[in-house]
Amino acid sequence: MHVMIIGGAGMIGRKLAERLARDGTLAGVEIDRLTLVDVVAPTAPESRVKIATETADLSVPGTAERLIGARPEVIFHLAAIVSGEAEADFDKGYAINLDGTRWLFDAIRLAEGYRPRVIFASSIAVFGAPFPEKIGDEFFHTPLTSYGTQKAIGELLLNDYSRRGFFDGIGIRFPTICIRPGAPNKAASGFFSNILREPLAGKPAVLPVSPDVRHWFASPRAAVGFCLHAAELDTAMLGGRRNLSLPGLSATVGEEIEALRAVAGDGAVALIRHEPDETIIRIVDGWARDFDTARAHALGFRAETDFRDIIRAHIEDELGGNI
Amino acid sequence: MHVMIIGGAGMIGRKLAERLARDGTLAGVEIDRLTLVDVVAPTAPESRVKIATETADLSVPGTAERLIGARPEVIFHLAAIVSGEAEADFDKGYAINLDGTRWLFDAIRLAEGYRPRVIFASSIAVFGAPFPEKIGDEFFHTPLTSYGTQKAIGELLLNDYSRRGFFDGIGIRFPTICIRPGAPNKAASGFFSNILREPLAGKPAVLPVSPDVRHWFASPRAAVGFCLHAAELDTAMLGGRRNLSLPGLSATVGEEIEALRAVAGDGAVALIRHEPDETIIRIVDGWARDFDTARAHALGFRAETDFRDIIRAHIEDELGGNI
Repeated sequence: MHVMIIGGAGMIGRKLAERLARDGTLAGVEIDRLTLVDVVAPTAPESRVKIATETADLSVPGTAERLIGARPEVIFHLAAIVSGEAEADFDKGYAINLDGTRWLFDAIRLAEGYRPRVIFASSIAVFGAPFPEKIGDEFFHTPLTSYGTQKAIGELLLNDYSRRGFFDGIGIRFPTICIRPGAPNKAASGFFSNILREPLAGKPAVLPVSPDVRHWFASPRAAVGFCLHAAELDTAMLGGRRNLSLPGLSATVGEEIEALRAVAGDGAVALIRHEPDETIIRIVDGWARDFDTARAHALGFRAETDFRDIIRAHIEDELGGNI
Repeated sequence: MHVMIIGGAGMIGRKLAERLARDGTLAGVEIDRLTLVDVVAPTAPESRVKIATETADLSVPGTAERLIGARPEVIFHLAAIVSGEAEADFDKGYAINLDGTRWLFDAIRLAEGYRPRVIFASSIAVFGAPFPEKIGDEFFHTPLTSYGTQKAIGELLLNDYSRRGFFDGIGIRFPTICIRPGAPNKAASGFFSNILREPLAGKPAVLPVSPDVRHWFASPRAAVGFCLHAAELDTAMLGGRRNLSLPGLSATVGEEIEALRAVAGDGAVALIRHEPDETIIRIVDGWARDFDTARAHALGFRAETDFRDIIRAHIEDELGGNI
């Protein structure tokens, strides 16, 4: 089986590539080829699987046709301009997130006798306030950002192209991934990870919002699990509705902090400094807090149900089991 | 005020043009110019208003820029490839309904210092079964056709472009328009009108479904009223949600027939022949039956509440008041 990850240099893409490289199989079938694609050069993990890396920009006409030339049976489409950048650069966001996605879908459509599984990374940004405390599987899309709009359009295209039989698609709306590894970044959502990752490494962290703020989380490990499950799932079970909100854990920042205390002690918690930031408070106020993901759950998707498990996953996967 | 109707040769476009030509004003402002655009040459109604007609294809690059060159303050975008054709011709449907709409929106975005009111004709085809008996204002979009997908994408673009301040948009989801004037057509929904229009003209009509079938209706007169109200509305009241399901009348085919009897007598009803058509029965089974349009109602949109009024509107507007 030939598996392609578009967005293979991103956080989830890299972790998914490492997992596939380690397992050597997907959906019980041997992977004989893994292709990692991104705008920046992806890194090929060590593996007995033959891994190719490619630097390519999906928003350049002709790129999608070239990428699918070798007819990968499974395509993970994780590439995107993130929320903040898509808001700051209107043209770039639409070029990558809408046109890039559509060109990929069209290249597949126009390739004769080709019908791969396509896993599309969508986002809870397709939802915008006001919404119910728990967003259900039938709540409508009211994105408040261009990024959310582009993801919602990607979902609609994926559904129509799948209905037409051009490919076998599934769109998965990830919760906010926490704990994001690496350095603190400037994304408005960064603090959700920073206040855990930095203290776990003995470093200080800033909390810009109230501990009462509630949000929707899953670990990077769970995110990789979502991708694998979406690739393995019998899509006949999706019927005409191929886009799903994935399970996650609804928790307040205060609950994050108490989980940190339980796992790493008072010393870690003492490294968090509360420093309210009105801009971030306002942005976060428009974000979804909780979901009822009955459909995804019935389809077998699973996330953590206890924040301590999210922290432990980080310690095992990123810190070699030691803090 | 310069008003433009794109899709000015279509059924609603023509009636809207006639109404604007007659009124000479929109939102209390004098219309000094009315431009009718369509792929087939629109007909300019008699009027003291200066009316221009233009034959143009929105899916041809550069067309949108040319059309908005004269900076119309109000644009009604009613042009579309209809459902059946968009399903039969994938490329054409996407070219007109998605690309054409996006190019129009982008031409406006890129025109400096220009921020017109844009009224976008959407459709209840953005909803697909299974759905609740009454579809509410927060039900999600699950189109079962490429046409419905393209309209749902148009709504998302309209909302994002309006949020960004590129134009002042409102998307309105029309009920099925009944009684459609003119000759019977082959649209699957044609019979809803045929069984009234033909008997009112003393001609036979075929009913291909059970009288129990329930559907969602408004008259052409109400449709014109929706367009005018959408142009006049204070869009600040829409908040971040600029797309609306419009009011309509939920009625069964049996109720249509009883209204016909009340208005035109048993003789008219006797002209309807029940001849079940399995294909049409199956298609219609996936259509929405009823809506809770609380938002549109609160915003002042109005439709008929009695099917006899729909029939009377047809007799007044199309048959000179006589049957």
